[in-house]
Amino acid sequence: MSEIRQLATSDSDFQQQLDQLLAWESVSDDAVNTTVNDIIANIRQRGDAALLEYTNRFDGWNAKSAADLEVPLARLEQAWNTIPVAQQEALNHAAERVRVYHERQKGESWSYREEDGTLLGQKVTPLERVGLYVPGGKAAYPSSVLMNALPAKVAGVSELIMVVPTPGGELNELVLAAAHICGVDRVFAVGGAQAVAALAYGTELIPPVDKVVGPGNIYVATAKRAVFGQVGIDMVAGPSEILVVCDGQTDPDWVAMDLFSQAEHDEDAQSILISPDADFVARVKQSIDRLLPTMEREPIIATALKERGALIVCQDMDEACRVANYIAPEHLELSVADPLVVVEQIQHAGAIFMGRYSSEPLGDYCAGPNHVLPTSRTARFSSPLGVYDFQKRSSLIMVSEAGADQLGRTASVLARGEGLTAHARSAEYRLK
Amino acid sequence: MSEIRQLATSDSDFQQQLDQLLAWESVSDDAVNTTVNDIIANIRQRGDAALLEYTNRFDGWNAKSAADLEVPLARLEQAWNTIPVAQQEALNHAAERVRVYHERQKGESWSYREEDGTLLGQKVTPLERVGLYVPGGKAAYPSSVLMNALPAKVAGVSELIMVVPTPGGELNELVLAAAHICGVDRVFAVGGAQAVAALAYGTELIPPVDKVVGPGNIYVATAKRAVFGQVGIDMVAGPSEILVVCDGQTDPDWVAMDLFSQAEHDEDAQSILISPDADFVARVKQSIDRLLPTMEREPIIATALKERGALIVCQDMDEACRVANYIAPEHLELSVADPLVVVEQIQHAGAIFMGRYSSEPLGDYCAGPNHVLPTSRTARFSSPLGVYDFQKRSSLIMVSEAGADQLGRTASVLARGEGLTAHARSAEYRLK
Repeated sequence: MSEIRQLATSDSDFQQQLDQLLAWESVSDDAVNTTVNDIIANIRQRGDAALLEYTNRFDGWNAKSAADLEVPLARLEQAWNTIPVAQQEALNHAAERVRVYHERQKGESWSYREEDGTLLGQKVTPLERVGLYVPGGKAAYPSSVLMNALPAKVAGVSELIMVVPTPGGELNELVLAAAHICGVDRVFAVGGAQAVAALAYGTELIPPVDKVVGPGNIYVATAKRAVFGQVGIDMVAGPSEILVVCDGQTDPDWVAMDLFSQAEHDEDAQSILISPDADFVARVKQSIDRLLPTMEREPIIATALKERGALIVCQDMDEACRVANYIAPEHLELSVADPLVVVEQIQHAGAIFMGRYSSEPLGDYCAGPNHVLPTSRTARFSSPLGVYDFQKRSSLIMVSEAGADQLGRTASVLARGEGLTAHARSAEYRLK
Repeated sequence: MSEIRQLATSDSDFQQQLDQLLAWESVSDDAVNTTVNDIIANIRQRGDAALLEYTNRFDGWNAKSAADLEVPLARLEQAWNTIPVAQQEALNHAAERVRVYHERQKGESWSYREEDGTLLGQKVTPLERVGLYVPGGKAAYPSSVLMNALPAKVAGVSELIMVVPTPGGELNELVLAAAHICGVDRVFAVGGAQAVAALAYGTELIPPVDKVVGPGNIYVATAKRAVFGQVGIDMVAGPSEILVVCDGQTDPDWVAMDLFSQAEHDEDAQSILISPDADFVARVKQSIDRLLPTMEREPIIATALKERGALIVCQDMDEACRVANYIAPEHLELSVADPLVVVEQIQHAGAIFMGRYSSEPLGDYCAGPNHVLPTSRTARFSSPLGVYDFQKRSSLIMVSEAGADQLGRTASVLARGEGLTAHARSAEYRLK
């Protein structure tokens, strides 16, 4: 019998129970912080020598020179050529769809002229060099390579550098194959905080990048936070989450499996169902009980459902949407008859899967949109990873002689109001 | 006689000197971190009671109840009505131009349909509630209110909450007037780490926001870093910077005053000139020597120029642009005859001021583009504050029955390749 919390929005303490359910704070403890800061300082001071030492120590290598840490592009092509055709086709299909979708996100420079000839605008340019962290070992996901590398490539990033640790020297063929079709420019077999530090500050071997993206363990996340400012970083993600909003008319087995598909990620993952149909919720619970023992990753799913899952009965769909907006879930399934109507009420979610056929795993792999999404209620203020994360803007200001006269008078008044007289005098020099 | 570093790109150690010149690391020391973490924990635990205590202690108040900390909107209108007409006109002129420019940045939702009926897209929505930190005391700048508040309002943020400390109970009339014309929704007379904590976590008085923006001292900056994740934050800015690239044909007094206009911000501000015309550089140095004693903020300017300023002679304009891209300055003036040609070579800069009439202070106040810009070489990967910082995106995925069959096959192959069988089975349920 599976265990999962059962709540009702009519419970007097529902809001409190919901807040407890959602509570998540990832804190790097002092030991992790100290270790990471030491590693970063060492990489900055001693470059490749330190990188080689850490890699030999942590990943069980016996490399003699830093150059051994580079994985030649030919090795990526070789991986591509040796994976089964079905996987080649699936990777190609996914990559093509992700590329097409992300092309729509590309920002363009713009400008306009005012009557006096003054030009204003914004110039949009790609980042020059980006580092992509790919975890090694059991969490080595080729889909993660596609989702991080393709937006960078679509943005026009000149050099995309991938780092992937190879504990015991083992390389994941699917990861290399994915890197091959994404056009990753260089690959280094390094990981952990030392890889993040090398990307941020550069070593003799690894050139410094402008931004570091990609998932990783607590050491990687802590290192990313530490180098933020020196380079850009993407979000530091919390556990994966799904909220299924259902009108009660979807096959309960489908909903149960969708909840499992988040729960199988890890024990901290969060799967929640909300529906106004109490009888349907009970049937989903029966599906969970029946299907759970058949799952390959049953222990992980069972723990996640027990610790962080919930089945919630609500009053009506309007209330379901209000709860969804409060949760601001990473993945939101609107498993309803009229998703185009219901979605109008949704303000906060990383990705919205609309209709009974839009199961969340389609978005993880190949629908087109990115699977790197804001977690832990951060969809209130942040967005899926996208091309816009690999572009930046510069303001353009070209003031005509007439414009300088008009603007200078206003700037002078305001600058003097703030006591900044060099500002004022700089503007006043340009008055007629 | 003023002191400022004189360099030439032909110096054998030029790159090293440049790196030393640009080096800047803002590190919050342990004492600041401890104080800030204590304040945040206290505000989270005790809410208004703690907020009141800190405000009475740090700002010299004698408030009895938390409600006293709210500044009524009528007080803002009163400030607007009492400032001189010239300042009213200047604020209106600036606000109108900033609003018009930022309207162009507004992102719109988009979607497309595929042949099998599958819909993909991205829904763009404003943040719901935003907190704007405005420093009190000597650095209370009304222009900063305009530049932070107007993009949020243009984005459609429902509730914009301003916090501003009032040391000794003193309110800056220009700041309140600026808040009035921006349509700020609520104002609280609190500051420091306690204000940031209150905005991030909420108290009985202050509702929790989704993002905190605006400049502040080291305690404010440290608190913003600490609450990041709970809420969004804007960049934590370093000292202000200007790089003037000049072909040698601009009035040297103009260039000297433009360098002063950054240097007067504070002793850490950075002003650099680069030109291929050594004789012109010498004339700018003469202008600096002559004008500096006439400046109201002479001591600050003199220190900034001595500690962090430089006059650089280069080989030609191409090299000037290469150095500019390396520096990735917050403000870049292209004080040249053909700025539309030269700008093509610029990749990294916060704002680009093109032509001899586009003095940087015009951008600080009223040209239209934002004056909150990436500093310390972060223009390599980040952008001016904009409407896009107050909007976020949700992916839209509505897969048709036929689409679920096609996509499900690919998702199934990839999910099984990653060992995630619940993902695979969720997709497989939707196959025909």
